[in-house]
Amino acid sequence: MSTKPNTPKGMRDFLPHEVMRRNHIMGVMKTQFERYGFLPIETPAMERRELLLGKYGDEGDRLVFKVLNSGEKVKKADLDALKSGELSRFGNSLSDKAMRYDLTVPFARFVVQHQNELSFPFKRYQMQPVWRADRPQHGRFQEFTQCDADAIGSDSLLLEMEFVQMVDAIFGDLQLSGCTLRINHRKVLEAIALRAGAGEETTRFFTILDKLDKVGWQEVKRLLLDAEYNIDIIDNIQRALAGKSTADQLDALQQLIGSSTRDNDPLHDLGFLFSNLGQLSSTKVVFDWTLARGLDYYTGTIFEISAPEQVSVGSIGAGGRYDDLTGVFGMKDMSGIGISFGLDRIELVLSELDLFPPALHTSIDVLVVNFSTEMITTLFPYISELRKQGKRVFVYPSAAKLKKQLGLANQLQIPHALIMGDSEWKEKSCTLKDLRTGEQSTIPLNRLTQHNWD
Amino acid sequence: MSTKPNTPKGMRDFLPHEVMRRNHIMGVMKTQFERYGFLPIETPAMERRELLLGKYGDEGDRLVFKVLNSGEKVKKADLDALKSGELSRFGNSLSDKAMRYDLTVPFARFVVQHQNELSFPFKRYQMQPVWRADRPQHGRFQEFTQCDADAIGSDSLLLEMEFVQMVDAIFGDLQLSGCTLRINHRKVLEAIALRAGAGEETTRFFTILDKLDKVGWQEVKRLLLDAEYNIDIIDNIQRALAGKSTADQLDALQQLIGSSTRDNDPLHDLGFLFSNLGQLSSTKVVFDWTLARGLDYYTGTIFEISAPEQVSVGSIGAGGRYDDLTGVFGMKDMSGIGISFGLDRIELVLSELDLFPPALHTSIDVLVVNFSTEMITTLFPYISELRKQGKRVFVYPSAAKLKKQLGLANQLQIPHALIMGDSEWKEKSCTLKDLRTGEQSTIPLNRLTQHNWD
Repeated sequence: MSTKPNTPKGMRDFLPHEVMRRNHIMGVMKTQFERYGFLPIETPAMERRELLLGKYGDEGDRLVFKVLNSGEKVKKADLDALKSGELSRFGNSLSDKAMRYDLTVPFARFVVQHQNELSFPFKRYQMQPVWRADRPQHGRFQEFTQCDADAIGSDSLLLEMEFVQMVDAIFGDLQLSGCTLRINHRKVLEAIALRAGAGEETTRFFTILDKLDKVGWQEVKRLLLDAEYNIDIIDNIQRALAGKSTADQLDALQQLIGSSTRDNDPLHDLGFLFSNLGQLSSTKVVFDWTLARGLDYYTGTIFEISAPEQVSVGSIGAGGRYDDLTGVFGMKDMSGIGISFGLDRIELVLSELDLFPPALHTSIDVLVVNFSTEMITTLFPYISELRKQGKRVFVYPSAAKLKKQLGLANQLQIPHALIMGDSEWKEKSCTLKDLRTGEQSTIPLNRLTQHNWD
Repeated sequence: MSTKPNTPKGMRDFLPHEVMRRNHIMGVMKTQFERYGFLPIETPAMERRELLLGKYGDEGDRLVFKVLNSGEKVKKADLDALKSGELSRFGNSLSDKAMRYDLTVPFARFVVQHQNELSFPFKRYQMQPVWRADRPQHGRFQEFTQCDADAIGSDSLLLEMEFVQMVDAIFGDLQLSGCTLRINHRKVLEAIALRAGAGEETTRFFTILDKLDKVGWQEVKRLLLDAEYNIDIIDNIQRALAGKSTADQLDALQQLIGSSTRDNDPLHDLGFLFSNLGQLSSTKVVFDWTLARGLDYYTGTIFEISAPEQVSVGSIGAGGRYDDLTGVFGMKDMSGIGISFGLDRIELVLSELDLFPPALHTSIDVLVVNFSTEMITTLFPYISELRKQGKRVFVYPSAAKLKKQLGLANQLQIPHALIMGDSEWKEKSCTLKDLRTGEQSTIPLNRLTQHNWD
C-alpha cells in the first residue's frame, strides 16, 4: 500500500490537543455527575443484534451498524432474502451483533440484567462512543460520543430539579453561558393533541410538531391540517401565552387544556419545578409547550438544551422522563429520567467561542535539552525526582541541533527548557530557561527539585 | 422479549466499582505517561478493512471483526466465493470496515496520515478498547482495553531507559511490587538463530522459541530439532549463562555469538541499558535471551512484563523497538519503541492481590435523607453549596422509610448521612451522622458548609 492511508469516511482521529479538549469537557461532566450522586458504568461496544433492532424506529434500524459473523457462520446467509431484495433480512442472517447506537437501550438492558446487583433508585452516568451509519456531513459523524446520566427507580420531581441544577453547574464549569434549557411535559402535549382531535394516537401529532425548529410554524400548521387536525387550539395557545411569564403561561394553559388533561399533574408539576429551581448561574430555563422530542419512550417532562445563539449547532443535550424504559425487557414500573449530552457538539461550541482554558495546551512542563547521552544519564536521577513531584518531562532522545530541540518545545508549547551544557556539567548545575519570557537561571543539580517554578 | 437480556458472549458490562477500578489503573498510567512526555491520541473504533487485514498474520486476520456494509451495498455479495467456501473473501465483499484489533496498526496509520501535523520525535499514549473474535474463555474477552505508549522518530537508547523507568513508576504507583520485566534484543536472537543454522529465515526459529513459556525446554528443543536446527548453541548458552549476573551473562554471550552477530551493537546496547537503569522501586528487570515475542515488526530490544508469581495470568504488558512500523504505509526510516499494557489483566492481578485503594469504593460522600419534598427543597441551596465545595451528594429522591434510605447508603458505602427531621427543621439545623461510627452532630444550616468532615 503506497497511497496515504486514512480513517473510514465519517470517523475521526483525535490529535493530542483535541483529546485534551474532549477530556476537559468529560472531566467537568464526570465531576458534576458524581457530585449529583451518579455512578459510572460501561457497556460493550456491541450488543446482540436483536436487542437493538426495533428500538429506534425504521430509520434508526437502518442506521445501526451490524457486525459480520465470523468463520463458518456466514454460511447461513439468507440468499432468498438477498434475491428478493430484503436486504435487511439478508444482513440479519449474517450478523448476530450490532454496534451501540445510543446509551439508553444498553442502559435499560444493563439495569434488567444486573437488577440483583444494583441498589435502587440507581443513578448512573456513562460516557462512551456510539455508531450510526448516517450520511457523514458537517458536524455529523458515524462515530460520536454521548455523555448520559440517568436516575431510574423513582418518579420524584426532585430528580427533575437536580437535573436542571446539574445542567447549569456543568455549563457553568465549562464557562459556557447563554445556553437555553427548554422544558415541556409529554402529558401537556398529549392534552393539546387531544384537543386537536388526535384521539389516542398522539405520536403523529408529536412527529409533526417536532419538525418546528426545522420548518417553522407555517409549515407545521399546514402539515397538521393535512393530517386533519384541528389547529384552533394551537392558535389559541399562541395568543394566550404570548408575552407572559412562565407562571402565567402555565395558568393560561391550564385554562385552555385543563379539562382535557387526563390528570392535572403535568402543569402542576411544571409549576412546582419552575418555582423551585433556585439560583442558576449559566443557563436560562424556559417553558416551551412546542418542544416535542422525537423519541417514543418519554412519558413525562422533556427537555432540550440549545447552544448560545451565535453558534448554529442545534441541540447540545436533551432528555426527559420515561415510565417504562425497561418494560420491553420484562422489568415493569421503573420510572426514570435521563439526559444525554453530545460531546462532539459541545466541543464545537466551546471551540467556536474560544472557551477552552489556555493551560490545556501546555501538557508538558519541561523539555530536557540533550547535548549527549552521558549528560542525560547523569541527569536521570534528577529528572526522576522532578517526575515524582508531578512534573511532565520530555527528554529529547538524541543530541540533535539545539535549534531543532527548541523547535519541538515551541511546537508542543512546552514552557521550560532544562539545559546542561559543558559549563553546567563541570559545575554540577543546570540552566532552567523560561521559553515564554527568555529568562533563565542556573541551579545547582542538588537543588533542582527544590527550585520553585510555575 | 421476555427472557432476561444479556451482553453478547465474550463481552462485559462494568458495574460502578469495576469502572472505578479500571479508571484508577488508567489514571495512574495517564499520569506517568504524561510525566514521561507522552501525549494522548485517539483513533476510531473502525478502520478500513483492507488496512487491518494482512497485518496480524493469518490467525489474526481470522480474529478481526468485520462490519457489515449498510443499505444497497450488500448487493455486492460475492456469491461465488460463498459457494466455493472462500468465506473470508465472501465476508470481504460485504464489508469495507473492520474493528480495531490492536492500537499499533492504527497508530502507524495515524502517524502517516497526520505526519504534517505532528512534531517528531512523537510520543503518544492511547487507551482504548480493541476487539477480537476469539473464543471467549477465562480471562480472555472479545472486547478488552489496551493502554499503549509509543515514541516514534528516534532510535535513541535513552527511550529504552525511560520505558523501563516508566514501567517501574506505573507499578510502583499501583502498589504492585514483584513484577518482572524481561528484556531481550531481536538481533541477539538473530545471531543465535544464525548459529543454529537458520540462515536468513529466522522467523520460524523465533516462533518455536516463543512457545517456551507454554511447552517447556524439552519440547522446544524437540521442535527445533524437527525443524533441522542445530541446538548445540542453545545448550552452550544455557551452560555459559547459568547462575551469572546480567553483566557476566552479556559477556558470556558475546563470546558465544559475537562472531556471528551482524554487528556488535545489540549486546553493547543491552549492557548500556542494564548499567544505566538507575534505582527501580517495584519491578525486577532481567535479561532473558529466550524471550522472543511473536510479532513480526520488532527489530531491536523486546520486553515483556509478568505479574508476581502468585497470580497466574501471563504477560500483563509487552513491547519493543521497531525500525519500520510505518513503512507499509509508505513512510520510511521511522524507528520507534512501544509498550502495551493489558488493562483487563492488570485489573485481575490487583483484584486478586487486593491492591485497590479502599477509598475507591466510597465514591459518594453523603446521603441526604428525605423526610419530605418540602424539607429537601429547603435544603437545596445548602446542598448546592456542598456540591460546589466538591462533595458528592446523593439526595434520596422520595420520602421512603428511613431504613430503606439508610440501606441504600450502606449498599453504596456512603460514609455520611445528612438528616433534617422535624426538630432540625424547626431549629434550622441538620444532623450529620457518620454511618461508619454512628457518631452524629447537629449543625446550624448556615454553618453546614463550614463544617469540617472527613
